[in-house]
Amino acid sequence: MPKGKQSHRVVVVGAGFAGLSAVQALANAPVEVILIDRHNYHLFQPLLYQVATAALTPAEIAAPIRKILRNQKNVTIFMDEVCGVSPTDKSVTTSSGREFSYDTLVLATGARHGYFGNSAWEQHAPGLKTIDDAFELRMRILSAFEKAEAAETTEMRQALLTFIVVGGGPTGVEMAGAIAELSHSMARDFRRIDSTSARIILIEGGDRVLPTFRRKLSESARKALVSLGVDVRTDARVTDIGDCRVTIADKDVRAGTVIWAAGVQASPAATWLGVDTGRSGHVQVGKDLRVEGFDDVYAIGDTAAHIPDGADQPLPGVAPVAKQMGAYVGTRISKYVQGKSTVSNFEYKNFGSMATIGRNRAIAELGALSFRGLVGWLLWGIVHIYFLVGFRNRLILMLNWLWAYVTWQRGVRLITGESAYQPKKHVTKID
Amino acid sequence: MPKGKQSHRVVVVGAGFAGLSAVQALANAPVEVILIDRHNYHLFQPLLYQVATAALTPAEIAAPIRKILRNQKNVTIFMDEVCGVSPTDKSVTTSSGREFSYDTLVLATGARHGYFGNSAWEQHAPGLKTIDDAFELRMRILSAFEKAEAAETTEMRQALLTFIVVGGGPTGVEMAGAIAELSHSMARDFRRIDSTSARIILIEGGDRVLPTFRRKLSESARKALVSLGVDVRTDARVTDIGDCRVTIADKDVRAGTVIWAAGVQASPAATWLGVDTGRSGHVQVGKDLRVEGFDDVYAIGDTAAHIPDGADQPLPGVAPVAKQMGAYVGTRISKYVQGKSTVSNFEYKNFGSMATIGRNRAIAELGALSFRGLVGWLLWGIVHIYFLVGFRNRLILMLNWLWAYVTWQRGVRLITGESAYQPKKHVTKID
Repeated sequence: MPKGKQSHRVVVVGAGFAGLSAVQALANAPVEVILIDRHNYHLFQPLLYQVATAALTPAEIAAPIRKILRNQKNVTIFMDEVCGVSPTDKSVTTSSGREFSYDTLVLATGARHGYFGNSAWEQHAPGLKTIDDAFELRMRILSAFEKAEAAETTEMRQALLTFIVVGGGPTGVEMAGAIAELSHSMARDFRRIDSTSARIILIEGGDRVLPTFRRKLSESARKALVSLGVDVRTDARVTDIGDCRVTIADKDVRAGTVIWAAGVQASPAATWLGVDTGRSGHVQVGKDLRVEGFDDVYAIGDTAAHIPDGADQPLPGVAPVAKQMGAYVGTRISKYVQGKSTVSNFEYKNFGSMATIGRNRAIAELGALSFRGLVGWLLWGIVHIYFLVGFRNRLILMLNWLWAYVTWQRGVRLITGESAYQPKKHVTKID
Repeated sequence: MPKGKQSHRVVVVGAGFAGLSAVQALANAPVEVILIDRHNYHLFQPLLYQVATAALTPAEIAAPIRKILRNQKNVTIFMDEVCGVSPTDKSVTTSSGREFSYDTLVLATGARHGYFGNSAWEQHAPGLKTIDDAFELRMRILSAFEKAEAAETTEMRQALLTFIVVGGGPTGVEMAGAIAELSHSMARDFRRIDSTSARIILIEGGDRVLPTFRRKLSESARKALVSLGVDVRTDARVTDIGDCRVTIADKDVRAGTVIWAAGVQASPAATWLGVDTGRSGHVQVGKDLRVEGFDDVYAIGDTAAHIPDGADQPLPGVAPVAKQMGAYVGTRISKYVQGKSTVSNFEYKNFGSMATIGRNRAIAELGALSFRGLVGWLLWGIVHIYFLVGFRNRLILMLNWLWAYVTWQRGVRLITGESAYQPKKHVTKID
């Protein structure tokens, strides 16, 4: 699409935390903004595990991008999928065959789960990054209980009631805790199995869960998981994953459901630009978040690797980093276009981090302070509801949580759709 | 599955309104109940069009069957798909290869939309009977607006913004009204199109919409539709449906989205039993709802055709008929097993019927009384919320409706999943 005369056009690819923040920071800038996303919604990813475990519906954590940006008149939104960038022509192309020229390009295309080169594991152990992933996991988890109820042998039942979560970071810990709670919420629903006998195994390659947190908080999290009945195995390496089977240190464990929460693979943005990346595919960015070697291209959020001064590790792929990167880039472009002095280098302000294990159990680090147990959990709830600002579902989400808390129930135990990893059945079946 | 010694086993196939009512009426009977359903949830189908038009989420109108029947200890539930009945062996077989013997069989397998023999139309004009259907329609409707925003020619835009609903019964009328309202709720969300310019065409073969209602109510409904901007065409016959095209009386109309609400095809229950049916596949049942020629097999709900004494038409496929049939059959079996005198023949008590067209607009017939406009709409809302008893979501549903009413917004505008009618894309794409 050719741009309007004289206007400076910023093309932003991706409407996650990073892309959306960049667009919003450009609200009052004299620019034309084009926002392109594969989906029509912005997803509040930190709560996605609650969709996968039947506690929340997608509409409670996703909002239409158009609705969020309704009043920002300088942005035009296209639901489309970028498949290439031409830095010489200064344009991006999409899978629908459209071409958008840009003056400045912001790549905020996120990341997916990565399998360290073992892509065959994906079908057996899907990960959790999108709403469709959450539906897939929800279907697998709930179906495992259904199949166990119908199973004719003890061996089958035990395998079906075994859930393995690979990866002891926040997503893995949250998934393991949530599955344990789900199994307890269904205690009276089955006649032939005891759903609370489900075995949940959390596998972490390092020596503790939540390794980015302080050691004592990791230990709190481990204890909370164990009290929920989760079998936490640290220093454990997965060497193979097959159909209903995980090989841990050369020993096969049978499991009806395997969930991948171990690795991250950046989007192919680096490939589009033809730049070198590490194994995880991240785009190296400089102090101003521009891609090294490109004057007009920024990369932000989970797809970017930014190593702060004095640090040896890039910033983690979490929401606060993405949001601050987006706001910085939006402001920087706005000043540049208006000929104002450019802002200083990007600096991440770490306000803290938190993870939840389940009802009454969470950990949080805020500066020098540590929180755990009920206090950590309340803090976690307040922060998450606060950051859902702009979603009309905050009230409904609070009511849902309150209801689930009082009744111990999960409201969204629906098995819908068909597995993305299996051949589609004919659609005209009768129920 | 062989049954326990001496117990009388009732196998109920289908957990819709009919099957669930039958099971619940057997709560205190000395029987063993097996309930088999393809899904793990009971669906409140009358509100399904609100899921298809982004007003409600599935969890608000569907509840896990296990949760509903949690306290009824004589029922065991299997999520499975029945694919055959052997009346000689008195058993049903399922697609997972399981076999269930029965003493009494209750078939409550429902219906799907039918295309009067033109099954090729389905991919171009899907219908609305299941949650997956609702997702499909929601995706098509919302995607049409997205594609129109990106379209490069006026002709393309106009075609994409044309929605054709085939069939002027309650579902067709409700869908047409809801799409009109959806288009208005997005008035400020697009930059290149005017979403309120969407053209919604409702096609009915007969001389009025809602033909089962009194003539003056049909006229009210038509006026309400027209006031929402719907182009209502009665006495119009669809002769062909193709890709983005409907042929009405030999004239082609281009439309980005076509929705089928015209015909109903009963489940294959009749085929399982090897009994003759009419074109729509319904099982003929006698005055006690047993399938003619079978002592131990009942058919109820949408899959059954029951012609009351003195009537020339079978009872309609609506929720109250299904529920009353289920309750009757459950009670009848219960009395029979306990050696009590059998109950009299089934008699349907018609308390009335209603249909909604949109905000402040509905029609209702209760006995000799007719209601329309705001009064009809309030009545419709109260009745529907009342009948959601047992769903934990009544409160949330009310809040959602209240919110939508005050703000004119639709909360669930998410395009998720992939079309069931198109080849699946590879799942590892990056967003």
